[in-house]
Amino acid sequence: MKRVGVIGGGQLARMMIAPAVELGIEIRVLAEAEGSPAALAATQVGDYRDLSTVREFASTVDVVTFDHEHVPQAVLRALVDDGVSVHPGPDALLYAQDKLLMRERVAELGLPVPAWAQVSDADELAAFISAHGPRVVIKTPRGGYDGKGVRVIEHATEAADWFASLAEDGNGGSLLVEEFVEFRRELAQLIARRPSGEYALWPVVETIQKDGVCAEVIAPAPHSDGAASETAAAIAVSVAEGLQVTGVLAVELFETVDGRVLVNELAMRPHNSGHWSQDGAVTGQFEQHLRAVLDLPLGATDPLAPVAVMINVLGGPSGQSLPDRYDRAAALNPNAKLHSYNKQSRPGRKVGHVNLIGTDVDSVLADARAVAQVFADES
Amino acid sequence: MKRVGVIGGGQLARMMIAPAVELGIEIRVLAEAEGSPAALAATQVGDYRDLSTVREFASTVDVVTFDHEHVPQAVLRALVDDGVSVHPGPDALLYAQDKLLMRERVAELGLPVPAWAQVSDADELAAFISAHGPRVVIKTPRGGYDGKGVRVIEHATEAADWFASLAEDGNGGSLLVEEFVEFRRELAQLIARRPSGEYALWPVVETIQKDGVCAEVIAPAPHSDGAASETAAAIAVSVAEGLQVTGVLAVELFETVDGRVLVNELAMRPHNSGHWSQDGAVTGQFEQHLRAVLDLPLGATDPLAPVAVMINVLGGPSGQSLPDRYDRAAALNPNAKLHSYNKQSRPGRKVGHVNLIGTDVDSVLADARAVAQVFADES
Repeated sequence: MKRVGVIGGGQLARMMIAPAVELGIEIRVLAEAEGSPAALAATQVGDYRDLSTVREFASTVDVVTFDHEHVPQAVLRALVDDGVSVHPGPDALLYAQDKLLMRERVAELGLPVPAWAQVSDADELAAFISAHGPRVVIKTPRGGYDGKGVRVIEHATEAADWFASLAEDGNGGSLLVEEFVEFRRELAQLIARRPSGEYALWPVVETIQKDGVCAEVIAPAPHSDGAASETAAAIAVSVAEGLQVTGVLAVELFETVDGRVLVNELAMRPHNSGHWSQDGAVTGQFEQHLRAVLDLPLGATDPLAPVAVMINVLGGPSGQSLPDRYDRAAALNPNAKLHSYNKQSRPGRKVGHVNLIGTDVDSVLADARAVAQVFADES
Repeated sequence: MKRVGVIGGGQLARMMIAPAVELGIEIRVLAEAEGSPAALAATQVGDYRDLSTVREFASTVDVVTFDHEHVPQAVLRALVDDGVSVHPGPDALLYAQDKLLMRERVAELGLPVPAWAQVSDADELAAFISAHGPRVVIKTPRGGYDGKGVRVIEHATEAADWFASLAEDGNGGSLLVEEFVEFRRELAQLIARRPSGEYALWPVVETIQKDGVCAEVIAPAPHSDGAASETAAAIAVSVAEGLQVTGVLAVELFETVDGRVLVNELAMRPHNSGHWSQDGAVTGQFEQHLRAVLDLPLGATDPLAPVAVMINVLGGPSGQSLPDRYDRAAALNPNAKLHSYNKQSRPGRKVGHVNLIGTDVDSVLADARAVAQVFADES
């Protein structure tokens, strides 16, 4: 039996467990702590930044993959030097870890991106604001997620604290600055690619963010004319092949008010924008990720219904978990698929999601929101 | 979080793990041995016939359910007396454990059954053969499964060894004898029922047996006219309510050459005839079983496509497991859903199954068989 090792014990690792069990693939997780969402498959608890910990874990599996992108390059490269199969590999993950390198590489590939610059001080930032402002977006190149490490500003002085802390950490101290894109909506294109080159694309989806966190996904993106959908697919294929990504890759995109499609962010792992595929496609992203990192033939990505919707449960009453309200949620809609991450609720925290398929986007969206609301209500 | 305890560590317990993880319900398994198919969730290894073992296990969960029907009545009744929530309960399970009691009770409910009798010796059996022969089916009331404990005979002398061993075990010594039903085909009606009474039916399916073992399932049963499908549903509801079954119940049926539908066997747990629902229905039987035994509202049972087919993998090359051939199987058909039980292959043993959905029954069946054949080939 093949053994897949996942570094990180969050909900993404958790959601690989179900397809692994069905396929008969052993899944082992290196979790940060006891009681993680992926605890059922956690065979080791330890620090993913510590090479000896990660080496010990890697020696028990056939392939190493990830719940997150935070494993240091030095650790990843040591594994590769040890002969460990690592997917995605360090050369690809680099671009998911560093937004400046990503912007540079994606621009090199000739793909459409917002205007951007690397800025090292307030003067350089002020120059970019003059050219592309008044509003711009600044990002710390590393460590941001779910809206953290991202700020919309109009004056260079608003970045003073970030420049100060970058100077302190001794890593050089540049920020990424981008034009503030007036977008019609946000899209995401999910693709899976195996080491031998085969890839598979799911339909492009619309993602709706709240406070920088993915809140809702509609698959396929409504009214996505052939052009936008083809552009999104072509971009994802270019990124996957250009960066030699293996496993699932999510390309987050802006659809601008003037109809252009621009690359926003990359994630090299199963992604929130693909959770709908668990119940809405022949092959869900978690199964596909396992197939891809094992270099197995990929599964079909066809949707099971004209519309699939995913609504995140963000927060909910503290001290409660989703199953405490399954009686109400399940009674409300027998078609809703309920997913809980076994995390304690706190405001804004992703603790689960609701998937629903159907034929009419407005009614599916309304129905799925109603079920998710059951979990969010204070009482 | 709710904890469901499953007695028995076979593939049915294994296949409850995936939906339990997604729902955020903790699943604990009392397995017979180390390395069982459900080992990932096994929190205890021990003998399900031993009351203290089962009591210890039951004390760690909120509800007890089953991978098989072999837990002795004395153990089940002691749990109920302890105040443990047991689903299905001993009063229901009795009829899945003893085929004579089942025949009696189902006949009492007025449901159509083959001609049958309880026979204690060769003379009584000979009398039944005279009335209903030449061919009849004899069954040991307890302990049979997958064609074991079932024999087609024409002469009472062919049952001599069974009468002898029944006499030896001190339990009274009766056999069940039934007319040999000339059936057009076999059907199965799956239903789930919660303690509070709500039930849900999947479409009636056709099952194809090989050597007494379920080999293929087609959902829904082709050319099932309204009448056969309504009769099957009405029978399953009568059995579920009449016997107060909780959880998933499978009613195996004969469709006779003259168009009648007769009750053959009952199984009070997820059943091979329902595996198609994992990938072919909004709610699969394993998720539904968990919902039912927790007395949660049941999920929708609508099919996801016009046709779903399940092909069992029976055997395959010894020493191999299914994942060893995923490269070939997955390449052959990207739509096939592959399920492995993590059991070593041996001739005729159920080691996994292939599910496939589509629109044309003949082509879906042919395609699914081709994938299953990859696992069965000797090389």
